[in-house]
Amino acid sequence: MISKKMVGLVKGSSVIRAMFEEGKQMAKKFGAENVFDFSLGNPNVPAPKAVNENIKKIVDSENPVVLHGYMSNAGYEDVREAIAQSLNTRFDTAFTSKNIIMTVGAAGGLNVALKSILDPGDEVMVIAPYFGEYKNYVSNFDGVLVAVNPNPPTFEPNYADFEAKISKKTKAVIINNPNNPTGVIYKKEWIEKLAAILDRKQKELDTCIYLISDEPYRELVFKDVEVPYLTKYYKNTIVGYSYSKSLSLPGERIGYLVVPSEADSFDDLISAMGVATRILGFVNAPSLQQKLIKESLNEKTDIEAYNKNRIKLYEGLKALGFECVEPEGAFYLFMKAPIDDDMEFVKVAKEYNILMVPASSFGVKGYVRIAYCVAYSTIERSLPQFAKLAKRYNL
Amino acid sequence: MISKKMVGLVKGSSVIRAMFEEGKQMAKKFGAENVFDFSLGNPNVPAPKAVNENIKKIVDSENPVVLHGYMSNAGYEDVREAIAQSLNTRFDTAFTSKNIIMTVGAAGGLNVALKSILDPGDEVMVIAPYFGEYKNYVSNFDGVLVAVNPNPPTFEPNYADFEAKISKKTKAVIINNPNNPTGVIYKKEWIEKLAAILDRKQKELDTCIYLISDEPYRELVFKDVEVPYLTKYYKNTIVGYSYSKSLSLPGERIGYLVVPSEADSFDDLISAMGVATRILGFVNAPSLQQKLIKESLNEKTDIEAYNKNRIKLYEGLKALGFECVEPEGAFYLFMKAPIDDDMEFVKVAKEYNILMVPASSFGVKGYVRIAYCVAYSTIERSLPQFAKLAKRYNL
Repeated sequence: MISKKMVGLVKGSSVIRAMFEEGKQMAKKFGAENVFDFSLGNPNVPAPKAVNENIKKIVDSENPVVLHGYMSNAGYEDVREAIAQSLNTRFDTAFTSKNIIMTVGAAGGLNVALKSILDPGDEVMVIAPYFGEYKNYVSNFDGVLVAVNPNPPTFEPNYADFEAKISKKTKAVIINNPNNPTGVIYKKEWIEKLAAILDRKQKELDTCIYLISDEPYRELVFKDVEVPYLTKYYKNTIVGYSYSKSLSLPGERIGYLVVPSEADSFDDLISAMGVATRILGFVNAPSLQQKLIKESLNEKTDIEAYNKNRIKLYEGLKALGFECVEPEGAFYLFMKAPIDDDMEFVKVAKEYNILMVPASSFGVKGYVRIAYCVAYSTIERSLPQFAKLAKRYNL
Repeated sequence: MISKKMVGLVKGSSVIRAMFEEGKQMAKKFGAENVFDFSLGNPNVPAPKAVNENIKKIVDSENPVVLHGYMSNAGYEDVREAIAQSLNTRFDTAFTSKNIIMTVGAAGGLNVALKSILDPGDEVMVIAPYFGEYKNYVSNFDGVLVAVNPNPPTFEPNYADFEAKISKKTKAVIINNPNNPTGVIYKKEWIEKLAAILDRKQKELDTCIYLISDEPYRELVFKDVEVPYLTKYYKNTIVGYSYSKSLSLPGERIGYLVVPSEADSFDDLISAMGVATRILGFVNAPSLQQKLIKESLNEKTDIEAYNKNRIKLYEGLKALGFECVEPEGAFYLFMKAPIDDDMEFVKVAKEYNILMVPASSFGVKGYVRIAYCVAYSTIERSLPQFAKLAKRYNL
């Protein structure tokens, strides 16, 4: 009786989410301390203390009718203006409230952006490995996902394949920076090359191709590498941001979209995004969380905790003989499976109570993603288990 | 460059939302006290005091990693169980957490429900006048809206037309109780008649037709009339609820869906709704708001304020010669325009700084919707302006 499209989606439902549920069951069975659940990107670092203090301050000071009420679908103007000014200070941009749409997290923002631009059959490009949900988001609007081949071990984009796959139907490219699942940062030079190709192809094909930069991990950077602000490199950029990771608020569903004024069809696009926010059933981003963001723009999560995990895990796994991509950002480690079949490897790892996500979920084979946003002690206790796993594969 | 579908949607964008924006502009120009904005269903009664106290209590007592973190897409289990038990107490039902999916308001919930059940070309029935957004929600999933003819002046459903329009393709019926825009309550006898027709047609056509009851106004009832709990009358019911009006939290985007265990394909439907919540980009209902609901289940908004408005406005307009449907619930008054063209009437009313929504937005002609969720003084001051309007039409 349910939708035919949904039957397939339920069956092949998110491996990540299924693992999250399985992890909870395993924790009940074996004890939480004996399960090494690296499946979900759920921050273990608490929100900065100021966040809860700001929430209390806001409910004590704001008029409740305004604080909990409807506002324009794009969000409170004062919040959008404050975000715009904060971006201008950080990235030397020139945004105002007009360039910002508040969204229900980055996932909500991407859906709003895609609803606004896609007609059935339009193509959206991603670069493998890519966050698996992109496929579902594109499919929500009857778009077609086109994946650029992966380029291990650096995972720098395969520019030739990227250019070759751009067609008259290409409406958007989604990149994720820092990258989930690889932990790699798309550097300035990479972005410049992608932008040059997009500029050239737009002219050649007489089309408009939006570059959607999904940036929930922007603040999670562990090396001295700049994460370029894409609107400065390519005018048809849409930035999707979320406070899920930067302020450890994933459950609160708060983020925003940025469109620079110089983007093609700027006015239409911004109007469409407001309407899409309403029609898709978001109506607006949660109101108290919007006000919270305005008060918390200068707050930062404790990324040193993630960095400590990153180093321990990366060094530990390397020492055991696993082949890993050194993570520069986000809180994921991308590890080569010792066998081609990553699904099988993940299954075997479960025997050691280690939960990891097979790279098949990200459009590539032979890797696993390890989300290290867990307690440091979990990393420490997991290494002997990883050692058994390494031994099993004669590493 | 934007989606062709969106071009039309932006152009014909919500008249209600456009008025909301226009009202803000007019308030700047003429002074807020001289503009009578009855356009938007934005509660003017503040949330109960306990709501803000509960928010502060929750942020002080809950583990922030849990409070602001991801949970199952369906929502926190303790919150869903508490809602289920509260419903059982109030309506003599037998729900558990398994029957509840937390949603981003009722708008989010309806989109989740429709995504879960609709294939392209499936028909969804509504009874005119109906909340205009239903058309957009159904269109999001390539469904086809089929409207049952209006039945003034009581707006009891036209059962013959309802039955005649049910086809093999009918996948769902959406009703809104108490009704937006009429303020009418669908009584037990009405529901029994609708349920009997649906049962008969399901058998005859060998199909499953879900009855989606959109109930954000359930607690806003001013007469001694019961709002029936539909799962008790028809097993294939999906209830959509929101705290937007019952706790004056429209901006916070918090609500839930209920599916009774005896519904056809219950397990599939509940799984599909969880997946749809994720895929549509909601991911989950805002986490702090979920916990807030658990703590605020027995809180009530001050409906006497709305009732006072209702009586003043209804009596006032009747005395001026306007023909009105007496509102029983919600906070809308449905008034017959003195001319056939409601769009023209709304335009003329704007000359008197009165903002109302033409019934064309709700699929009928010749009426206007007046949202009386405003200050009592606004109602008082608006009546002399309505008097001028009445005079203009020689009432």
